[in-house]
Amino acid sequence: MNASDHRIKIAILGASGYTGAELLRLLAGHRGVEIGALTADRHAGKPIGAVFPHLAGRALPDLVTIDEVDFASVQLVFCCLPHGTTQEVIATLPHHLRIVDLSADFRLADVETYAKWYGHAHRAPALQHEAVYGITELVRPALGNARLVANPGCYPTAAQLPLVPLVRAGQIDADDIIIDAKSGVTGAGREPTQTSLFAEVAEGIAAYGVAGHRHAPEIDQGLSVAAGRQITVNFTPHLVPMNRGILATIYVRLTNGASIADLRRTLTTAYDGEPFVRIVAEGGVPATQHVRGSNLCLIGLAADRIRGRVILVAAIDNLVKGASGQAVQNMNAMLGLPETSGLQQQPLFP
Amino acid sequence: MNASDHRIKIAILGASGYTGAELLRLLAGHRGVEIGALTADRHAGKPIGAVFPHLAGRALPDLVTIDEVDFASVQLVFCCLPHGTTQEVIATLPHHLRIVDLSADFRLADVETYAKWYGHAHRAPALQHEAVYGITELVRPALGNARLVANPGCYPTAAQLPLVPLVRAGQIDADDIIIDAKSGVTGAGREPTQTSLFAEVAEGIAAYGVAGHRHAPEIDQGLSVAAGRQITVNFTPHLVPMNRGILATIYVRLTNGASIADLRRTLTTAYDGEPFVRIVAEGGVPATQHVRGSNLCLIGLAADRIRGRVILVAAIDNLVKGASGQAVQNMNAMLGLPETSGLQQQPLFP
Amino acid sequence: MNASDHRIKIAILGASGYTGAELLRLLAGHRGVEIGALTADRHAGKPIGAVFPHLAGRALPDLVTIDEVDFASVQLVFCCLPHGTTQEVIATLPHHLRIVDLSADFRLADVETYAKWYGHAHRAPALQHEAVYGITELVRPALGNARLVANPGCYPTAAQLPLVPLVRAGQIDADDIIIDAKSGVTGAGREPTQTSLFAEVAEGIAAYGVAGHRHAPEIDQGLSVAAGRQITVNFTPHLVPMNRGILATIYVRLTNGASIADLRRTLTTAYDGEPFVRIVAEGGVPATQHVRGSNLCLIGLAADRIRGRVILVAAIDNLVKGASGQAVQNMNAMLGLPETSGLQQQPLFP
Amino acid sequence: MNASDHRIKIAILGASGYTGAELLRLLAGHRGVEIGALTADRHAGKPIGAVFPHLAGRALPDLVTIDEVDFASVQLVFCCLPHGTTQEVIATLPHHLRIVDLSADFRLADVETYAKWYGHAHRAPALQHEAVYGITELVRPALGNARLVANPGCYPTAAQLPLVPLVRAGQIDADDIIIDAKSGVTGAGREPTQTSLFAEVAEGIAAYGVAGHRHAPEIDQGLSVAAGRQITVNFTPHLVPMNRGILATIYVRLTNGASIADLRRTLTTAYDGEPFVRIVAEGGVPATQHVRGSNLCLIGLAADRIRGRVILVAAIDNLVKGASGQAVQNMNAMLGLPETSGLQQQPLFP
Repeated sequence: MNASDHRIKIAILGASGYTGAELLRLLAGHRGVEIGALTADRHAGKPIGAVFPHLAGRALPDLVTIDEVDFASVQLVFCCLPHGTTQEVIATLPHHLRIVDLSADFRLADVETYAKWYGHAHRAPALQHEAVYGITELVRPALGNARLVANPGCYPTAAQLPLVPLVRAGQIDADDIIIDAKSGVTGAGREPTQTSLFAEVAEGIAAYGVAGHRHAPEIDQGLSVAAGRQITVNFTPHLVPMNRGILATIYVRLTNGASIADLRRTLTTAYDGEPFVRIVAEGGVPATQHVRGSNLCLIGLAADRIRGRVILVAAIDNLVKGASGQAVQNMNAMLGLPETSGLQQQPLFP
Repeated sequence: MNASDHRIKIAILGASGYTGAELLRLLAGHRGVEIGALTADRHAGKPIGAVFPHLAGRALPDLVTIDEVDFASVQLVFCCLPHGTTQEVIATLPHHLRIVDLSADFRLADVETYAKWYGHAHRAPALQHEAVYGITELVRPALGNARLVANPGCYPTAAQLPLVPLVRAGQIDADDIIIDAKSGVTGAGREPTQTSLFAEVAEGIAAYGVAGHRHAPEIDQGLSVAAGRQITVNFTPHLVPMNRGILATIYVRLTNGASIADLRRTLTTAYDGEPFVRIVAEGGVPATQHVRGSNLCLIGLAADRIRGRVILVAAIDNLVKGASGQAVQNMNAMLGLPETSGLQQQPLFP
Repeated sequence: MNASDHRIKIAILGASGYTGAELLRLLAGHRGVEIGALTADRHAGKPIGAVFPHLAGRALPDLVTIDEVDFASVQLVFCCLPHGTTQEVIATLPHHLRIVDLSADFRLADVETYAKWYGHAHRAPALQHEAVYGITELVRPALGNARLVANPGCYPTAAQLPLVPLVRAGQIDADDIIIDAKSGVTGAGREPTQTSLFAEVAEGIAAYGVAGHRHAPEIDQGLSVAAGRQITVNFTPHLVPMNRGILATIYVRLTNGASIADLRRTLTTAYDGEPFVRIVAEGGVPATQHVRGSNLCLIGLAADRIRGRVILVAAIDNLVKGASGQAVQNMNAMLGLPETSGLQQQPLFP
Repeated sequence: MNASDHRIKIAILGASGYTGAELLRLLAGHRGVEIGALTADRHAGKPIGAVFPHLAGRALPDLVTIDEVDFASVQLVFCCLPHGTTQEVIATLPHHLRIVDLSADFRLADVETYAKWYGHAHRAPALQHEAVYGITELVRPALGNARLVANPGCYPTAAQLPLVPLVRAGQIDADDIIIDAKSGVTGAGREPTQTSLFAEVAEGIAAYGVAGHRHAPEIDQGLSVAAGRQITVNFTPHLVPMNRGILATIYVRLTNGASIADLRRTLTTAYDGEPFVRIVAEGGVPATQHVRGSNLCLIGLAADRIRGRVILVAAIDNLVKGASGQAVQNMNAMLGLPETSGLQQQPLFP
């Protein structure tokens, strides 16, 4: 095709999981890129429709192993491989490739923190050092030259978008941040596990990973940079019987005479002109229903009944702004494409 | 905007219901039309974000009453008003307007059948006579000149797409058609009723309107035209705890020595080249998960254990191909626009 | 029946709502009481099966108006009427009746607090003064002589069971309590409202009533009594796409050198021997799935990542321990019946 | 305990699955039996609360391997082991044991049918010959002396209860029976599989095992006995996003001048006095919501729009009447205990 001559060729490594499928949904509407290869080691040789029937009928390359990919014509790779194995795969990729990694492997910059939370020394420390942690709105200038972008976790995206500007502004006490987060089940991926079975999840809600979830040090890291000193947050995730969505209800304490109006102003200014972050009007409260399927992040603020406290609420779709959508947004920023390309899906409600 | 000069201006009457919101989702991606007016009598004066928070932030006109609309610059109207009142509203609209009506008011061509199922004589029989019943794939040639298109019901769309070609071909016994249909809850609309409450629907499934649902005569009508004689079907709808989706499992009996391979061939030929109707490969079975949010209709076939019987399964999203998506498709056909404009959303899975 | 001669006759006012139906489910297994009358003004004259098909087939009296009830032989009344109207109804009931009121009308002891949160002066202030606020485990001695018991709200039950012993013990800072609560949809009752529709709730989670929910002053009241001074809490409810269950995730700060082990000991001691309150073993976290349909309250504790903070998690079924189950438990305590009578349903999982 | 001296000791083999847990829920209210042993090979040594947190706190024996069970004092065993391995385990059990087997291993009486559908020759054909297929209401007299009862499948229970009396009566055409069945997800068990993941099932409905589900020959078998000749039915199962419940919508053709009133009379007579089977009053339609958690089977009838056809609808809870509840009912019949013992749980609605 002539049209595709002008398109940038990309590959998706690990296309048989939910984030891979979501990339394919989003990229279907992206006129600037062309999908050159899809890998899935266990399913190599099959059409994508064999693992995702909703993708049957699309003109997409068959699944192959990573070894089979001809990377020569590929410019950028989305890496949707499991945590832990990703670092070794990326270390072997040709150097001309730019990479958006959706795993957790390159999110933590500190080697000791990584080792502590993931139970082994990092196997590609040089890459770890090089990687740019990519909440697009917060690091946009660094993305243009980045070779490897660590795409943030879903919870950390929902937590940091509202918190980073406020911590930077010194308007909240960074040592007293409580993040009560609620997620849909797709965050657990497509691997069969008992805890993700319909019958275990439906008609109930539970906290999990209390004080021990790997997204906690990722949030600490982002807020520590913003505060200029080491920060430790409360982060308590919950599993909700729904497919998609993260709601982060965040409890903060005002400092330095700041008011809720100051916080609202700080956030409004920080995200002025941003296509995907919206500060909800006073009195409104974000719901995950209102971002489903879109790359939006909604942020609301409300005064607490406890004097001096404020409640922040952020809502994203964990598979879009919390994963594949932000990955596309990062790619756009890396390649100098319009940042909303491939990301103009409206929320699907109901 | 210069761009909008070339756009066709449309209006949506009754924009505060689910089909109105769905039209707005789809039309956001349509480059050929511009939304000129949104009406909702009870909410006149409010921004659309007040009734649908997920639409806040879009550049859309505020809600007005129908009387307030300046129809002079409007070319086409989507009518999403309640059954029964629609006919009188449409009768008073300016004559230059073309209309896609999503209510049931103009679906039944026969005045007596209408009176029997809706409990009153039709109040706009001339329009009823004029209306084109619009399953796009089955009546495309008639749409170009149609002024008023009756957009089909969700169940009748899922039932007729697989059945009409087979009845036309005489390959199935039109007097022995059993349609066991399952629908998500959005089909019941946004009016608060006890039967649509979360707590009444969740964690359960039930049949309803058994042998008495108003979509039955609509299906009869379509198949009777195809058969050239009066047909009466079994149609048994069920309510499923999900937002979107219709699955029609249809039990038919082969005639005239036809085989399941013949049926498959008939359907494949009938929908060859159609962008939204897909015959699922042998061994596959459609699921509503695989069409969610898209305008697709998937059709599968399987041999029954009872000799001479075949099972057809059709899946659509009731709000898209079953309502607003088909409405946009009909508009495109009426106006000579590319038929997939505004309808390129991929299925949202999971 | 001879057997019923020994049974205490009770009546349920407002039997057509979810708490009424739940009382009927529980009392089916109670050998000490007999159901003498069921009222539902709008449905008077109908069998209960006409409003609750799952109760058809039970030997139960038909629905009547309150005026039609012969209260002479009735000893105790469960009152499941709407907030606001309940107080006037109860004021007119014969004085020999003992009453468990499931509405909010008698929960707040302070007339000004009531007026502030409910928007009108209380219409039965003498009764308001007399009412015993009935979290059974916390006020058991007062129930034996109580004539009117105000059955606690669902959220306040889940919040106070873990918090009251800790506040009493002075082991947590009562001015820094954050209660992030998540509820199933039945908490909103059976009245049709848009916000309780399946399509509005499913596949999403949202906060609501932020800093303005009427259960907040109820929790304040209980903790203020425990603290011996005025306490104001953060209470942030969320709506979860499930029928039943409340999960309260509570963030507290230790005081006076207390440790999490001290808190665990305080709670274990407080609820030692209680049939319905269980402190989950270290490392465990309660889930609402594990109490569904039962009168249990599970409480877990975990150390926070922020030094000096602890996370409490409480799970109940909002219709059982949060409403009708606690009402039966209160009745048992009032009448001197075994407290577990009618409450021995095991959790329904999955 | 003295009380337990009079209790019959039972064991549950395979207690870590859903049917095992459900037996424990039901038997908690059974005064005639005592749980002597619980086995789960992979979890031997753990308390039951380690695999089912909702059972923590119950006084139950720890999990052991089958080899560790002292069967000497055990009178009856519930066998909840996987299909295929069950037959060999049962063959080795001591001969004094009576057995209710919840697997499929002994449901098909014909060795060739078994081999065809399960892919291997039966490994305990003598036991297969001896086993009584136990839909309690249909074979009660045979249960008193049965040593091995094959507990029926969930779908076959929902299908045969309405159909067997009608086929016996010759009032419907046994060669034209279409069973469109819908099931909750617990029917697939607790083994992690991709198809049972929340994200695959929620917000969708699909047919599966079309014309190839192993419950089809089981239904054929029951109806063939009733008809006195070989019957083949259409049986089309669907997976519904809910935990529990089976709804069977059954399409039949009247024969011999029979009317729908005749069918209603036949069913009413057949189940007169039965505690768990209810024929729903005319105009009513069963819903699975109305049987959740109970051992009830509701059956409704409606005239079809196609002359000479009738629609039957049956609703059960697949884990109760479709599995563990019927197992307890069978045990009661085998042991001469009151048939409703342990089965008096009311439906949990909502």
